[in-house]
Amino acid sequence: MYGAGDVRVEDVADAKLHEPTDAVVRVVLACVCGSDLHPYRSMAATDDGVPMGHEFLGIVEEVGREVTGLAPGDFVVSPFAVSDNTCAFCREGFHTACVHGGWYGAGGIGGAQAEAVRVPQAAGTLVKIPGDVDEALWPSLLTLSDVYLTGYHAAHMGRVAPGSTVTVIGDGAVGLSAVLASKQLGAERIILMGRHTDRTDLGRDFGATDVVAERGDEGVSKVLELTGGEGSHIVLEAVGHMPAYEQAYGIVRPGGIISRVGVPQYEEAPVGFGSLFGKNATLTGGPAPVRAYIEQALPDVLDGRIDPGRVFDRTVDLDHVADAYQAMDSRQALKVVVRP
Amino acid sequence: MYGAGDVRVEDVADAKLHEPTDAVVRVVLACVCGSDLHPYRSMAATDDGVPMGHEFLGIVEEVGREVTGLAPGDFVVSPFAVSDNTCAFCREGFHTACVHGGWYGAGGIGGAQAEAVRVPQAAGTLVKIPGDVDEALWPSLLTLSDVYLTGYHAAHMGRVAPGSTVTVIGDGAVGLSAVLASKQLGAERIILMGRHTDRTDLGRDFGATDVVAERGDEGVSKVLELTGGEGSHIVLEAVGHMPAYEQAYGIVRPGGIISRVGVPQYEEAPVGFGSLFGKNATLTGGPAPVRAYIEQALPDVLDGRIDPGRVFDRTVDLDHVADAYQAMDSRQALKVVVRP
Repeated sequence: MYGAGDVRVEDVADAKLHEPTDAVVRVVLACVCGSDLHPYRSMAATDDGVPMGHEFLGIVEEVGREVTGLAPGDFVVSPFAVSDNTCAFCREGFHTACVHGGWYGAGGIGGAQAEAVRVPQAAGTLVKIPGDVDEALWPSLLTLSDVYLTGYHAAHMGRVAPGSTVTVIGDGAVGLSAVLASKQLGAERIILMGRHTDRTDLGRDFGATDVVAERGDEGVSKVLELTGGEGSHIVLEAVGHMPAYEQAYGIVRPGGIISRVGVPQYEEAPVGFGSLFGKNATLTGGPAPVRAYIEQALPDVLDGRIDPGRVFDRTVDLDHVADAYQAMDSRQALKVVVRP
Repeated sequence: MYGAGDVRVEDVADAKLHEPTDAVVRVVLACVCGSDLHPYRSMAATDDGVPMGHEFLGIVEEVGREVTGLAPGDFVVSPFAVSDNTCAFCREGFHTACVHGGWYGAGGIGGAQAEAVRVPQAAGTLVKIPGDVDEALWPSLLTLSDVYLTGYHAAHMGRVAPGSTVTVIGDGAVGLSAVLASKQLGAERIILMGRHTDRTDLGRDFGATDVVAERGDEGVSKVLELTGGEGSHIVLEAVGHMPAYEQAYGIVRPGGIISRVGVPQYEEAPVGFGSLFGKNATLTGGPAPVRAYIEQALPDVLDGRIDPGRVFDRTVDLDHVADAYQAMDSRQALKVVVRP
């Protein structure tokens, strides 16, 4: 990406091993992320461009001499962030803070919207997918890179448990994933705030019990009404813009939790007596340490208990990746698979 | 209080029953709160004034016809907020959000820096102190009105548990109470940030294992150094000013918790990628629902297992309550008892 709206497909040097802890992986399935739309909308023009894509399934082609547990030919899924899976923060389940961590498309690591990618800290980062996998399951496996487990992280940090009442703000792919994850964690009531019927219909399939199309003050009133005037114990904010944040503290119940996974497009926000403090609301969330959750979610996908890949509604090849951005930006597509 | 620095002692109408759920309580011990210093420093001058004081022990003088469980002559402690102890929010432990709640000194309820006070929702609000109590225990019992249990709330919301590493920001009476509460909850390491040696010495008595006198970036560096560069799992913020908040997100560990009980003197604050979100830090806390904790803490005080009343270092009578404010504001006193 060279700037807002400027996505180009280019030949670059082949991915190859730099460090003995690297692997090179041939990408078999990647996709475009809702968070990729933020630079697509606002990135300043650059001469050098930035490699894009951080979600993929692939086949290991080559491993460095210090990489254990992986061999050429292995089918793997990669979390959107690199991690050693052994440092203090990884051991506590916060792999996105790994001391040897990194991000695809930054710091000399390539993007995953590509034919192949170098994976640093490969033994820690990549998770091998066992057995022969039906290609029909690939989209759902791909969601373990980011989108489903980002929704799961929202629910996990929001402490969703059997019987919970949860409100999800945002009917994008992460919001819908948060609905599905909340359902998996036993939520009894799931209110989905979104106004795109095709999306909220999928949300209902995923477990939403109520849909609120209104936004802003009207949306807040509607959720309060649905919760007997008391508000929602748990609010999962899957957008990242200020109006969503304001909605969140408007509908959260005293003592409740707001869990954010939409990357905040703001740094400062209300947190004082009139917003969070006065009602003892808790604010949590951050970049999902999906690596912490993949192994647990894998059997649910492989055995067909969940089908989070339903968030994908279009596929492009690499040459048409710019079309994928355009379709998601204009909301013609919810989330687009890239098949190199 | 008529404005910043303007505290007057005046004769007002006697406290009496307004509602059948009220009680009238003769105050035997009250005190000045750190939060009373905010208006003492910045309140705009008014003609009418505001009744002050929200922490007290007293003897029930009269009860309304709907008040159960209390009778004239009972020795009681009052939480700083009124609550019915039965509504949905009270049942969830968030009495400061009670639907029938209220605050001393506001909405027609008098202040507790007085000879007597009307207590709304008396059956829910007041907690009877059993047996004959040695007067030496009164100061510690008085801390169950607010200061000790506000420190406890910070630790509780911060999920302090056996083995925790906790950093407490602020060596005021609430900060020191947060140290004592963290110790009670089993914290293994308690770093106290404060620079008044007489106060931090009491903090050490209460359980602080380390004291950091530095503030700002220097203070952050010092705490990071003490925690092997990783940061503190739990940060209890007992000040309420922006520099304390900034210190808090500087020293919190990825995945850690900041629990605030100092009333924020700001509404907006950093919460984006560069402060909370990027490291999955959780922000929690609010006005302490001390009513939820009194019954559990009472035996610890009555049996002498904790002595939170050590935060009091001066006593005045009602006529000298203005001196109490002045002494606390100038840090000549940590916390002052008012004995009518």
